[in-house]
Amino acid sequence: MDDLRTSATHHHPFSRRQFTTAAGTATAAAALGLTATDATAAPAIAPAAPCPPRSTADWKTCLAVARALLVVDGDDKPLVPGYEKILGSGLPRARGKGAKKVLVVGAGPAGLVAAWLLKRAGHHVTLIEANGNRVGGRIKTFRTGGHERAAQPFADPRQYAEAGAMRIPGSHPLVMSLIDGLGVKRRRLHLVDVDAEGKPVNHAWLHVNGVRVRRSDYAKNPRRINRSFGVPRKHWDTPSSTILRRALDPVRNEFSTEGADGKRVDKPLSERVRGWARVIQKYGDWSMYRFLTEEAGFDERTLDLVGTLENLTSRLPLSFVHSFISQSLISPDTKFWELVGGTATLPDALLDKVRDVLRLDRRATHIEYWDPDRHGTDDTSHVHAGGPHVWIDTVSEGRDGKVMREQFTGDLAIVTVPFSGLRQVQVSPLMSYGKRRAVAELHYDSATKVLLEFSRRWWEFTESDWKRELEAVRPGLYEEYRAGKAPADGSLLGAHPSVPRGHISPAQRAHYAANRWATRDQPEAAHIIGGGSVSDNSNRFMINPSHPVSGSEGGVVLASYSWADDASRWDSLDEDARYPHALRGLQQVYGQRVEVFYTGAGRTQSWLRDPYAYGEASVLLPGQHTELLAAIRAPEGPLRFAGDHTSVKPSWIEGAVESGVRAALEVHQG
Amino acid sequence: MDDLRTSATHHHPFSRRQFTTAAGTATAAAALGLTATDATAAPAIAPAAPCPPRSTADWKTCLAVARALLVVDGDDKPLVPGYEKILGSGLPRARGKGAKKVLVVGAGPAGLVAAWLLKRAGHHVTLIEANGNRVGGRIKTFRTGGHERAAQPFADPRQYAEAGAMRIPGSHPLVMSLIDGLGVKRRRLHLVDVDAEGKPVNHAWLHVNGVRVRRSDYAKNPRRINRSFGVPRKHWDTPSSTILRRALDPVRNEFSTEGADGKRVDKPLSERVRGWARVIQKYGDWSMYRFLTEEAGFDERTLDLVGTLENLTSRLPLSFVHSFISQSLISPDTKFWELVGGTATLPDALLDKVRDVLRLDRRATHIEYWDPDRHGTDDTSHVHAGGPHVWIDTVSEGRDGKVMREQFTGDLAIVTVPFSGLRQVQVSPLMSYGKRRAVAELHYDSATKVLLEFSRRWWEFTESDWKRELEAVRPGLYEEYRAGKAPADGSLLGAHPSVPRGHISPAQRAHYAANRWATRDQPEAAHIIGGGSVSDNSNRFMINPSHPVSGSEGGVVLASYSWADDASRWDSLDEDARYPHALRGLQQVYGQRVEVFYTGAGRTQSWLRDPYAYGEASVLLPGQHTELLAAIRAPEGPLRFAGDHTSVKPSWIEGAVESGVRAALEVHQG
Repeated sequence: MDDLRTSATHHHPFSRRQFTTAAGTATAAAALGLTATDATAAPAIAPAAPCPPRSTADWKTCLAVARALLVVDGDDKPLVPGYEKILGSGLPRARGKGAKKVLVVGAGPAGLVAAWLLKRAGHHVTLIEANGNRVGGRIKTFRTGGHERAAQPFADPRQYAEAGAMRIPGSHPLVMSLIDGLGVKRRRLHLVDVDAEGKPVNHAWLHVNGVRVRRSDYAKNPRRINRSFGVPRKHWDTPSSTILRRALDPVRNEFSTEGADGKRVDKPLSERVRGWARVIQKYGDWSMYRFLTEEAGFDERTLDLVGTLENLTSRLPLSFVHSFISQSLISPDTKFWELVGGTATLPDALLDKVRDVLRLDRRATHIEYWDPDRHGTDDTSHVHAGGPHVWIDTVSEGRDGKVMREQFTGDLAIVTVPFSGLRQVQVSPLMSYGKRRAVAELHYDSATKVLLEFSRRWWEFTESDWKRELEAVRPGLYEEYRAGKAPADGSLLGAHPSVPRGHISPAQRAHYAANRWATRDQPEAAHIIGGGSVSDNSNRFMINPSHPVSGSEGGVVLASYSWADDASRWDSLDEDARYPHALRGLQQVYGQRVEVFYTGAGRTQSWLRDPYAYGEASVLLPGQHTELLAAIRAPEGPLRFAGDHTSVKPSWIEGAVESGVRAALEVHQG
Repeated sequence: MDDLRTSATHHHPFSRRQFTTAAGTATAAAALGLTATDATAAPAIAPAAPCPPRSTADWKTCLAVARALLVVDGDDKPLVPGYEKILGSGLPRARGKGAKKVLVVGAGPAGLVAAWLLKRAGHHVTLIEANGNRVGGRIKTFRTGGHERAAQPFADPRQYAEAGAMRIPGSHPLVMSLIDGLGVKRRRLHLVDVDAEGKPVNHAWLHVNGVRVRRSDYAKNPRRINRSFGVPRKHWDTPSSTILRRALDPVRNEFSTEGADGKRVDKPLSERVRGWARVIQKYGDWSMYRFLTEEAGFDERTLDLVGTLENLTSRLPLSFVHSFISQSLISPDTKFWELVGGTATLPDALLDKVRDVLRLDRRATHIEYWDPDRHGTDDTSHVHAGGPHVWIDTVSEGRDGKVMREQFTGDLAIVTVPFSGLRQVQVSPLMSYGKRRAVAELHYDSATKVLLEFSRRWWEFTESDWKRELEAVRPGLYEEYRAGKAPADGSLLGAHPSVPRGHISPAQRAHYAANRWATRDQPEAAHIIGGGSVSDNSNRFMINPSHPVSGSEGGVVLASYSWADDASRWDSLDEDARYPHALRGLQQVYGQRVEVFYTGAGRTQSWLRDPYAYGEASVLLPGQHTELLAAIRAPEGPLRFAGDHTSVKPSWIEGAVESGVRAALEVHQG
């Protein structure tokens, strides 16, 4: 421990934040793209903005986080062009002794990309995946068949929907290049609903405090919604997104400027790096709650308004920096894309490249590695100076009765397991202090989806479509719904002739009837394609498919998409219990009559309850960017670390791909 | 909305924190025990400590929270003696028209107490419970039989263990008085392990950073553990509890003083109320993370040390006030109690009092209530000015195939459902703004337990006990374990002759062997009765039974007890997958050899995943005490609210009982 006392700072000599002065400097600094000079010399450029009095994060650490965020090296040179080139034409060929035996743990996008690149370069790769029938990790499509040979999830076998990743920003270069390079088909995703000509109309609903207004009307006249929250008069006539933008713009001024047209223009890269470092130094320890109340001066009602409509409420106690990045790195002009046939077509294509080196149904339970500097009390008898340097024990799930164990060895390993899952794996000898704290403390968020299938895309209906279709159920039903007089006994659930019979059980009907939203309030037809509505009910976000599934008149609605505490409210329910609740929330916003098209088929995904994912993504707590990021990425002897949690784009495929390329490079070069 | 503009404060005219000046003043103030004078007049006593510059919570609100915390009325008169009297001799008898028809929703301790008191007083009570076979809520004992007719949970039918509430502080007057009044048998619980004479010895393990030290040794010489965290030299020789105490003492000085003997002495009640109000005003918006870093000046390493050993790490982003209360309201001298036969013997006894008015298997899905002031768009056709004023729709689970619906009506209702569950219930008309935000936002924490049964209480063994018992498995095994040479193939799992055969499947054995903690490190016999160990592994807290189960040589260990993010790591695993992991963590601390006594029987409880509890308890976020507490308790028309989440003692039976008495009083008088 004595070496720690050589630290140059006196106030907090052993702070993890000052990782550049503590043990493991070289690897931790390298992991964040710092050069050796950066890691040891005094800062060349002092922070322009003064530190808040008690901030404990030093400038170098903040700079390193900013560089990781912007994916630049220690000289502020962008790393992405090089990564793109590697994705396209591969790593240089490893020959003879340069060819290494590499274990890759986890076949999500990071592991798939790393395994593919290393295999192409001539390394001997084994890709180990805990799941018995599927690769792709949190890219998961509910679909019939696929490489995972899934049972038909919906009444219409052609229908599919996303359990995980579903929208790909065109501004994410690595994933876009991967998709196009692999020949995976993509098309536009309508984040905002469009009309029949594909023009954005923004007609979806906002439904809060019992008030229902179209988004486009709210943008023009926010007063009714804003007053329903009781915000002060000065905020009556400002849309929530503008209130939030104004609160965040002073922070954005650190790295971009507002042009004459109101659009933000990035500062030159080197200034941008320092601007982000200042943001991290100033607010790295802050929660979004603290920022919006203390710095932006929001009163509680304005916080409620903005939190509800801009999806901040459930993440208020989490890192300001995390939410701020989400709000800032994607501009309002960003185009979003989806993959035809489901996001799983991307892992499908990657699987084709690595099928021969993949071992499914092998859950890592114990990792031993050779590190001559770490002599502990732990037994490392499976690894030796002469090799192998990594030994991994695995166990199968025993779906077909017999549980298998298998051990793998390698010269190096890339571990892509989320730290929430790695927490349950024995790693011997003990990894570095910083890594162990990161594995124990890195916060993982919840995210939960409830998907419901309908035999018609009723959200695209006009009022006359509704009349025609409801009269097809039985004459007069259209008016019964308008008058709030349709029977509430569940008999109308899936009553439309297009709904295949026999999918809805009597028990389902009873649960549904008890939970059904009961009201006389009947909104007009939504008449939107794509986009989605927001509510303060437990569903929170309701998202429509952007495109029909070829040959099908129906569609699957993401009836509820929620995060953090909003998701926990769903996670407490058993899967079957979620569907009637999700349908109720949809009815509250779109009207009771949608029930006639419900096929009785739904699917739900709770990422926190998923035994392969262990959470939605690493959404950091206040302070964790500066405390943990370097340690998250740092190698441990022959172990390298990848996965979106090792990037500063957690939950995005882009972050996973970036980490996969980086780790493959580390292995190839190291 | 116009009435809101009469607010006297100008900075944040519509802040929920200033509930005493906003709509619903009278009821909200009453809910917090404020008198009418308090709610409207200027504060008689100004806060002694200055507000932090940006605090938005006003003094009246802080005072009201402090009064709720200390359970005093608006004149600072203690409410508990009156509540105790009511628990003992009942409410006054309601006669004739005074007898009301009351629905009580939820048969946890709050609902059971309220239903019992109201029934005794002559009201017409119906107690509705979602669970089909059990009352008690988060008081739940894994046991054979009981009123819930549970299947045998462990290999030994006499064994039982707690899924929920397990330790009752003697300083909680209401629950103690309830237990004794009902004739439920209690005995001492050994929070700290004891020797054979019952004397506390504190010999359990601390096991962190690969270092294992007995708690008593750590108290005497903390240096080895403290340096394993890399804390600065000034903290090398101070135990973590002392470091924490010193950090919190300045805050405690607001309401108590340190006596000559080092023990803290409470200030007089009225001063104490104001002292707590100052604490809430100063730190109400703060997380524990912010307090320990900014106010206490902890560096990261000291934060890690104290967080790990004092169980703060996983709750760092949550309310400072919540954790501070837990650290402050129970003195180190507090005696803890457990109930003989399990904590469920308390709900057993309460059930005897209300059996005739209880309806099990009735989950509330929709509540309608009459409130002439709230005319919404919602259909309230089941309730009327002339009565009934409350209508509740329910649905059964259909465990035996048929799903039942049943509707109940009453003059008044007491809703004890956790708000995380109430979020999924339609309440018509819309409740007040503050209540709806509280239902949506009140944070509920996770807590997860994994319990493992052993055929012998090996933690009570001396080294010679170990030798005798291991030699009984097979000669030489004692030395094999000491040399780290016992086979790792799972063959020794449950190998002791005392373990009944046939409980451990081959699949279980394979999973266990793959996950088994592999090390040559063999600690000495723990030789402790009761108490528990702490580790930085995923198990975190390991707790031994304080007393043997009569007639059994075995025992059930709480192998892992964790909260918040620590619990989420377990919640991602399926129940069956938790047991091998929990056994591994136990082996890491106590040694591999404990495996020979494992019976293969475990039980686990994830409170967040429980569809009756919807979380462990309301553990508030920064700001929620002042923002939400008044709204949580406030009546909504004929609806009253009880449950531990309406008290300032969430997760404690005391808080539930206190709320049950309060709500019964409100109904009786109201």
